[in-house]
Amino acid sequence: MQKPTIPKGTRDFGPLEMQRRKYIFNTIEKIFVHYGFQPIETPAMENLSTLTGKYGDEGDQLIFKILNSGDFVSKANMEGGAVTSRELLPQISEKALRYDLTVPFARFVVQHQNELTFPFRRYQVQPVWRADRPQRGRYREFFQCDADIIGSHSLNNEMELIQLTKDVFAALGIKISIVINDRNILAGIAELIGAGGRETEMTMALDKLDKIGEEKVFEELKAKGFSDDSIARLKPILSASKEKDVLSFLGKTLEFNQAGALGVNNLKSILKKLVDSGTSTEGVIIDPSLARGLNYYTGAIFEVRPTETDMGSLCGGGRYDNLTGIFGLDGVSGVGISFGADRIYDVMLEKELFKAGVTETIKVLLANFGGKEELYCLKLLHDLRAKGIKALLYPDAVKMKKQLSYADSMGIKFVVLIGSEEMKSGLITMKDLASGEQESLTWDEMLKKLNAKP
Amino acid sequence: MQKPTIPKGTRDFGPLEMQRRKYIFNTIEKIFVHYGFQPIETPAMENLSTLTGKYGDEGDQLIFKILNSGDFVSKANMEGGAVTSRELLPQISEKALRYDLTVPFARFVVQHQNELTFPFRRYQVQPVWRADRPQRGRYREFFQCDADIIGSHSLNNEMELIQLTKDVFAALGIKISIVINDRNILAGIAELIGAGGRETEMTMALDKLDKIGEEKVFEELKAKGFSDDSIARLKPILSASKEKDVLSFLGKTLEFNQAGALGVNNLKSILKKLVDSGTSTEGVIIDPSLARGLNYYTGAIFEVRPTETDMGSLCGGGRYDNLTGIFGLDGVSGVGISFGADRIYDVMLEKELFKAGVTETIKVLLANFGGKEELYCLKLLHDLRAKGIKALLYPDAVKMKKQLSYADSMGIKFVVLIGSEEMKSGLITMKDLASGEQESLTWDEMLKKLNAKP
Repeated sequence: MQKPTIPKGTRDFGPLEMQRRKYIFNTIEKIFVHYGFQPIETPAMENLSTLTGKYGDEGDQLIFKILNSGDFVSKANMEGGAVTSRELLPQISEKALRYDLTVPFARFVVQHQNELTFPFRRYQVQPVWRADRPQRGRYREFFQCDADIIGSHSLNNEMELIQLTKDVFAALGIKISIVINDRNILAGIAELIGAGGRETEMTMALDKLDKIGEEKVFEELKAKGFSDDSIARLKPILSASKEKDVLSFLGKTLEFNQAGALGVNNLKSILKKLVDSGTSTEGVIIDPSLARGLNYYTGAIFEVRPTETDMGSLCGGGRYDNLTGIFGLDGVSGVGISFGADRIYDVMLEKELFKAGVTETIKVLLANFGGKEELYCLKLLHDLRAKGIKALLYPDAVKMKKQLSYADSMGIKFVVLIGSEEMKSGLITMKDLASGEQESLTWDEMLKKLNAKP
Repeated sequence: MQKPTIPKGTRDFGPLEMQRRKYIFNTIEKIFVHYGFQPIETPAMENLSTLTGKYGDEGDQLIFKILNSGDFVSKANMEGGAVTSRELLPQISEKALRYDLTVPFARFVVQHQNELTFPFRRYQVQPVWRADRPQRGRYREFFQCDADIIGSHSLNNEMELIQLTKDVFAALGIKISIVINDRNILAGIAELIGAGGRETEMTMALDKLDKIGEEKVFEELKAKGFSDDSIARLKPILSASKEKDVLSFLGKTLEFNQAGALGVNNLKSILKKLVDSGTSTEGVIIDPSLARGLNYYTGAIFEVRPTETDMGSLCGGGRYDNLTGIFGLDGVSGVGISFGADRIYDVMLEKELFKAGVTETIKVLLANFGGKEELYCLKLLHDLRAKGIKALLYPDAVKMKKQLSYADSMGIKFVVLIGSEEMKSGLITMKDLASGEQESLTWDEMLKKLNAKP
């Protein structure tokens, strides 16, 4: 029989990975809660109609569809033989796995609008599924950690998300830059270079800057019909982040452009709020070339990059003015942020940021000698646990070598050895596996030792 | 546009439900960890071949299958027109959503056997999906919380799972009985009533005792070909749990039956271990009619029922001797337990066991008057959060009535009001929404007040 496997692009997480992942999730969640965000969860399966058409044609292809249960063929029209996948799909599938947390959140807000208090601050930590071609760092099942404030236009919300982001990465120990831009600045630039109204095309091309570099982006723009003149005028603006005072430069460049000036003012205002609140703006970088591909963004956008390693974006977000419009609820503005737990994990591993305390180990193993000694240890085990100490009794009376090797591979530091002598005296023999030292202790002395050396 | 919906049998969880659910999950997980269980997670999607044939024919029907991505039709053979669902399924679907956590766990253990330290104690808290007909208390997506010890035959493990169960329900405040039996007792009974080797059929029928009652179970047994004599002899044994000393009664009844005597000894041994360890056996009930439908159980089985409400089983488990055999790894015995978070939630709601502290509320809302006052409050907000206090600034400078109503519906007790006078004096006006009382406080006095009254 072949060893079983799992679908490509998916992963099992063993104890060590799980404890590290939990540390990341807990750190993020704790800060979400501290900032007043409240948890929600939505089902893994959404109606296919809820998801279709929200992520572009390419996205639609990457949605995992669920086959209708029961005799799906009998309910489908397959007469005539020549049926295409596109024709058959809606007849045999009505449900799909969520592709991100944003569209389900928009659906949630519209569906439950009468039960929610606005401005609504929600967070959501759940897996999403994409039928992407698996590759290093890209999985078909991965977790998103999203926080959104919906139902308020105030730039205070942008400010808070930047503070929150700084707090999260400070808590995790990852050094970062927060790159910010505004979609209105991109719209202004498009107008300025004589490509007004084409900012979406421009944005989609700019979104690939990190991946393919400036030259390829310009080639793509040219292929899309942007004139040489437009591209020549775009170049110096994209390099604005090298300017000493980017916002002044952009302010001057876009002075007479309505959208552009609005965008510049938004960013100025967010920076001023950060300063007024007493938050350092160190590491906050204005970059007019930041695009963020998603087409629902309408205002400020931001992205987090680690400064001490090359890993792309760890976190991103922005302002959207009409996310719930796709489900019929107009005029609800929001701003959101999404942390990529998998990349954060990879950075922390590479930079050795997981501290020893992240993995909870068992403090003491009671060796099992069988017989009366075993029964005696059952009581000892129960009493240790009642004292809040993580203790284990080796379940079987096997050779001591095997038990000690178990303790070793589990990272357990102390082993208690109870023989007939200990049962008589009431004293406890405890061995320190690191030093090899063995001591005879009273109950209280043992407790002290187990507590004193975590 | 119609309001969007979610697939039947699935649920959205809003902030209140989420916080209560998290309380249940955290309580269970904390105790799992205290008992030395380590977390793992497996992907939502497994290869269809991993799941098929593991849950019986009926179970296979209830597995949610995932449509292959891309042009699934072109890869399928649909020539000739008359294709059945059964023929088409393996051609258009290779993956499925997990149906429980047990089969993925067995797959995990076999796949990663060389990386694991045995006896391996794992816990796993993840959703599972079943295409069951939705009804009250039965969902198509629900969470299981499982703990298993695999790679040891010792009955100490059964004892520990009973202790753990008692600890979990004590922590949650739910009064329970733990009903236990042993599959060997059921095998013994089958032999004793002249239906040797047919214990699986008997078990499947007995499993419905709770749902359809004794008379219907006997009818079913008769329909299955059990003789009137067998059924007549079965009756008094099933009532054994009414005996004063069930184990003595069963011991005598099954004295000369090898399997039966083994089962009785197992239970005696588990009870003795509980007593020796200092664990009360109050609420532990031996019941030879307990069946637990799953056919991989081979030894002790147990089930938890709430005593103060009628809700069926909240938790169940048992010993399996060869779970990993289905994936080619024989001879690995284990014992496991599964908590049903949804039913536990329902019991806690009905019995009003969720304490106020379960839902974390924001401690103080800073009212937003706009202008300079707003900027002043940004600093105050930042400082309060740095002190560990959950504070919010209302994001927009809207009417005070709206801001106070927000505080009210969010359960926020204190509102800070900063006007030009407060900015000048440096004092803080804080309103207690419950009493309506308003005070002028220094920073330190405010901190004290916010800490003192959580």
